[in-house]
Amino acid sequence: MSSTKDIDALIDMMAKLPGLGPRSARRAVLHLIRKRALLLTPLADMMQTVAATARECLNCGNIGTADICDICQSNKRQNGELCVVEDVADLWAMERSGVFKGRYHVLGGTLNALDSVGPEDLRIPRIRDRVEAEDVKEVILALNATVDGQTTAHYIADMLEGQVQLSSLAQGVPIGGELDYLDDGTITAAMRARKSVS
Amino acid sequence: MSSTKDIDALIDMMAKLPGLGPRSARRAVLHLIRKRALLLTPLADMMQTVAATARECLNCGNIGTADICDICQSNKRQNGELCVVEDVADLWAMERSGVFKGRYHVLGGTLNALDSVGPEDLRIPRIRDRVEAEDVKEVILALNATVDGQTTAHYIADMLEGQVQLSSLAQGVPIGGELDYLDDGTITAAMRARKSVS
Repeated sequence: MSSTKDIDALIDMMAKLPGLGPRSARRAVLHLIRKRALLLTPLADMMQTVAATARECLNCGNIGTADICDICQSNKRQNGELCVVEDVADLWAMERSGVFKGRYHVLGGTLNALDSVGPEDLRIPRIRDRVEAEDVKEVILALNATVDGQTTAHYIADMLEGQVQLSSLAQGVPIGGELDYLDDGTITAAMRARKSVS
Repeated sequence: MSSTKDIDALIDMMAKLPGLGPRSARRAVLHLIRKRALLLTPLADMMQTVAATARECLNCGNIGTADICDICQSNKRQNGELCVVEDVADLWAMERSGVFKGRYHVLGGTLNALDSVGPEDLRIPRIRDRVEAEDVKEVILALNATVDGQTTAHYIADMLEGQVQLSSLAQGVPIGGELDYLDDGTITAAMRARKSVS
């Protein structure tokens, strides 16, 4: 590479981001350098700002710029529903859909015996505290449909049994999905949970 | 989106980079925020540094941190060969191969009548100056094998005819390429330029 040290270092850093490799990092850096005043400087400034202000919500684990995130601060979101997700990215995905009006609880991962991730490494014990403190009527377990996700969901369901209503996301054919491309497990789940057409 | 203004702004900026979309920008920003001290702050600092120091080489158009780039400064690279490329990314690709030991000339684009890009908008007139000033014996036209690239190559060849030896990159089957997946033009070029096996 004929570019100099700093540019190489910047490319190496960008190449470590998820979704970017060495080739796309080089393209991105060249693009940034060409549009220096318009893109590179503002991006660097915004990164500094976010690095200085971003933090996890002390209540739910969402990422925001305050100790307590907007959702936990809003009284309108305290409707007795608590949605448990694995990750902040899952919370953002739920928010984009706009379907859920309650509050969230971000675990920050899943239980995993091999990596010795136990309930106390996640935010699992806090769920019980929040159920009492925030007068939660229903806990929605919106964990990923993976083995680890479902193991974690079962653990939380056991922990909360009898204290609160528990539910999980429906499983079935995704909107726009074609049967031919679906796996056997999804088709089985969709068939078992079939609904009568009125 | 439930994250706050600055984080959303950072995601929007990242999503505009080539090779990233909204989804991968969100993933990248979450990753950066999680590894703030290790990744986000150093990346922001390095972007500031590059924004302050990166510039185009006044001689060849390569991007570096000095007015004259390392390649143009090195006497070892003045071997009478000048490789003309469209873009800095092409120069970097040539340098990674390590096959070329001469100097480069980056046009910064191709001639394009529709977008009214003429020779004076690129660094085309400078090639003649450099051929004289740097005692160039051979100009290698390493432009992309696209219509615009080849039009530009022909224009430069006409301009320099009789003054210097001209060559272009060989066309043929790429290393590791399978005939079945190659387009007709490449197979035709490879067949016409076939070599005897000794």
